[in-house]
Amino acid sequence: MSLKIDGGDLWSRLMVMAEIGATPKGGVNRQAFSPEDHEAHRLLAKWAQDAGFHVTTDRIGNLFICREGRNLNAAPVLMGSHLDSQPTGGKFDGAAGVLCAFEVLLAFERAGIATEKPVTCVAWRNEEGSRFQPSCMGSRLFAGEFELEACMAARDSSGISVAEALAQGITDISGSEDMSMPIDAYLELHIEQGPELEQAGLPIGAVTGIQGRQRYHVTVTGSEAHAGTTPADMRQDALKTAATIIHELYEDFPPRDERTRFTVGAMDVFPNSPNTVPGRARFTIDLRHPENEMLQMIGGRIHAICASYSSPCHTEVKQISAAEPVAFPQAMVNMISRHAEALGLGHKLISSGAGHDAAAMASLAPAGMIFIPCRKGLSHNEAEWAESSDIEAGTRVLAACTAELAGAHFR
Amino acid sequence: MSLKIDGGDLWSRLMVMAEIGATPKGGVNRQAFSPEDHEAHRLLAKWAQDAGFHVTTDRIGNLFICREGRNLNAAPVLMGSHLDSQPTGGKFDGAAGVLCAFEVLLAFERAGIATEKPVTCVAWRNEEGSRFQPSCMGSRLFAGEFELEACMAARDSSGISVAEALAQGITDISGSEDMSMPIDAYLELHIEQGPELEQAGLPIGAVTGIQGRQRYHVTVTGSEAHAGTTPADMRQDALKTAATIIHELYEDFPPRDERTRFTVGAMDVFPNSPNTVPGRARFTIDLRHPENEMLQMIGGRIHAICASYSSPCHTEVKQISAAEPVAFPQAMVNMISRHAEALGLGHKLISSGAGHDAAAMASLAPAGMIFIPCRKGLSHNEAEWAESSDIEAGTRVLAACTAELAGAHFR
Repeated sequence: MSLKIDGGDLWSRLMVMAEIGATPKGGVNRQAFSPEDHEAHRLLAKWAQDAGFHVTTDRIGNLFICREGRNLNAAPVLMGSHLDSQPTGGKFDGAAGVLCAFEVLLAFERAGIATEKPVTCVAWRNEEGSRFQPSCMGSRLFAGEFELEACMAARDSSGISVAEALAQGITDISGSEDMSMPIDAYLELHIEQGPELEQAGLPIGAVTGIQGRQRYHVTVTGSEAHAGTTPADMRQDALKTAATIIHELYEDFPPRDERTRFTVGAMDVFPNSPNTVPGRARFTIDLRHPENEMLQMIGGRIHAICASYSSPCHTEVKQISAAEPVAFPQAMVNMISRHAEALGLGHKLISSGAGHDAAAMASLAPAGMIFIPCRKGLSHNEAEWAESSDIEAGTRVLAACTAELAGAHFR
Repeated sequence: MSLKIDGGDLWSRLMVMAEIGATPKGGVNRQAFSPEDHEAHRLLAKWAQDAGFHVTTDRIGNLFICREGRNLNAAPVLMGSHLDSQPTGGKFDGAAGVLCAFEVLLAFERAGIATEKPVTCVAWRNEEGSRFQPSCMGSRLFAGEFELEACMAARDSSGISVAEALAQGITDISGSEDMSMPIDAYLELHIEQGPELEQAGLPIGAVTGIQGRQRYHVTVTGSEAHAGTTPADMRQDALKTAATIIHELYEDFPPRDERTRFTVGAMDVFPNSPNTVPGRARFTIDLRHPENEMLQMIGGRIHAICASYSSPCHTEVKQISAAEPVAFPQAMVNMISRHAEALGLGHKLISSGAGHDAAAMASLAPAGMIFIPCRKGLSHNEAEWAESSDIEAGTRVLAACTAELAGAHFR
């Protein structure tokens, strides 16, 4: 009664998708709302339409591939992930989850299976948040966490807004005015982005939850001056001060608690000229921890350290987002483990270090995640890699869980 | 026998020039080879042609305004400065020197003065070096320090080459294939860019020399990784390492010797995404000191500190330029002081902290510089300011020195 997953076709589609925005080092640069991102969405829509599915999009560009159920009034079981990438991302982060979900729809078609509830595959927009903040924009809009207007007005570092970037990707896919709909459940397959499954030699992780995250923008303001003439004691050097603050922040966060993830990932200096003392430096802080209490405590330390080392400049610390830790329902975690077991696939419980669209969905319906291993735990890196056999294994579990949730009638 | 300088007209031209690339905060953004820089050169050429002067340009775009002498075989007395600015520069750095030199030509015309030697006003290209390195590109090409091909191939941070940027500014000014010509002497008026003259309440500085400068590019290479999943001890964070190196470099250079000027002015992080551990960070070092020995010693410390704090990343330190300290000929310094004295203008000897095109000219012919005060010593800053009366005073000294050097026949 197990569904036949075509791992070869699935792998081929993944590799074709990876050509869109392919980088010389074997990775992918397909940042949200870029021409490449739009092309990826158009390609998926074409595959889906060619296979006879109904395809829709919403106003932020989330893409839905719909397979009807017998019960026309039932909310769909939703499954998917995202197609956008980091600037130096890999082939699998996001794309694997979308294309595995699409393969599940195709497997249902091939097997002629009818389900009670509809089953929908989704490709969320702007999960990564590298070009436009906040991240998980598409799924969190769907979950009602943001105003559409505010997201449309977000701008990238060159001043282009989401609305402008989105307009460049207009397609003839039929759109919907609704930014959401009721859903019955949500499932997402994703590469682990950490080393645990590979080290344990297991193909399947049943994800118990997602750690919490806070994000900050720190702006250090000094005053521009001539690098050749201005004496040290007359300077207000924003980059010098920022470097000291970053140094001291990292000094303060050795792995006292090894679960803390603290990262200064982006920094911009102004006017960024070799012979001018910098007048302004801005950097980001990404802070994660599975426990809310620790996040609050460390957040307080960030403010204190920035204040301590700010002189003779002025430093502003702005918290731009806070996502509390998410725990997936025990029933979803158990279901994933059970189906992995039934399929003879090695599995373990695992906590997610990375944020995912599934966190937003967890506020709407029972949500669950299936992890598969990635080589050396690398992701957000062009060398990111997942094995075809693990992708197929994960898709088999995803198909079995979806069949159960949607109420499949096997022939 | 003193020449009549029209300070009002000179100030008006300075203010019209300052509108090209004007910034909201009252400064100027007229980086080398930008559309604004080209427009500034075209405006000056038009003014000069309208006044009846012969105007030429060379292959890097240096602009020459020529006034013939009686002796057709004599090399010209050259005077000028540059029209390009820092990204957040002021109205006077460079532009004052060019427009004062142009006013000297006009004053000679108005007074009907003939000179034995030709007198030429020059606007050098890309003195600032903020967009394209190396700095003082135009004057150092003229002095034979660089190959034209190499300068043409230099690229800005967005990948545009000097050749490409220069091609966008093509004008109908007649060009020359020669990148140089013999010169008899060189004079440059410039704002001090330091606080000495203002503090002493004097309008004129007779510049004794220019301190030496070294410039470095430091590249820290680590490995990109996911900010939410990768444990601290598995990271090679290029920005974290760069911040520590910069912090330690500044710790190592308190004003042990107060004449040291040490600046990290520009920094670029890659991929510069909030949720990716940075794989690469590159920053610049600008180091200046009046003594060559100290420059060598500090240069050695830079290499040692970068090596000490590099782990677990890899750090490459590349020295991209070295300009030894320049001493202007005593006769030129004395001549400037003598004419200031004769004109009843307060003056003092002064050493230049900033680099100038005059340093390149000093290798070709006797060179001298006249400094005028700027408010609070500020430059490379939109608040940069010089008083009209000081600009006029400096121009009177420049005119007198030029008349002496070129052999003027007053009526």
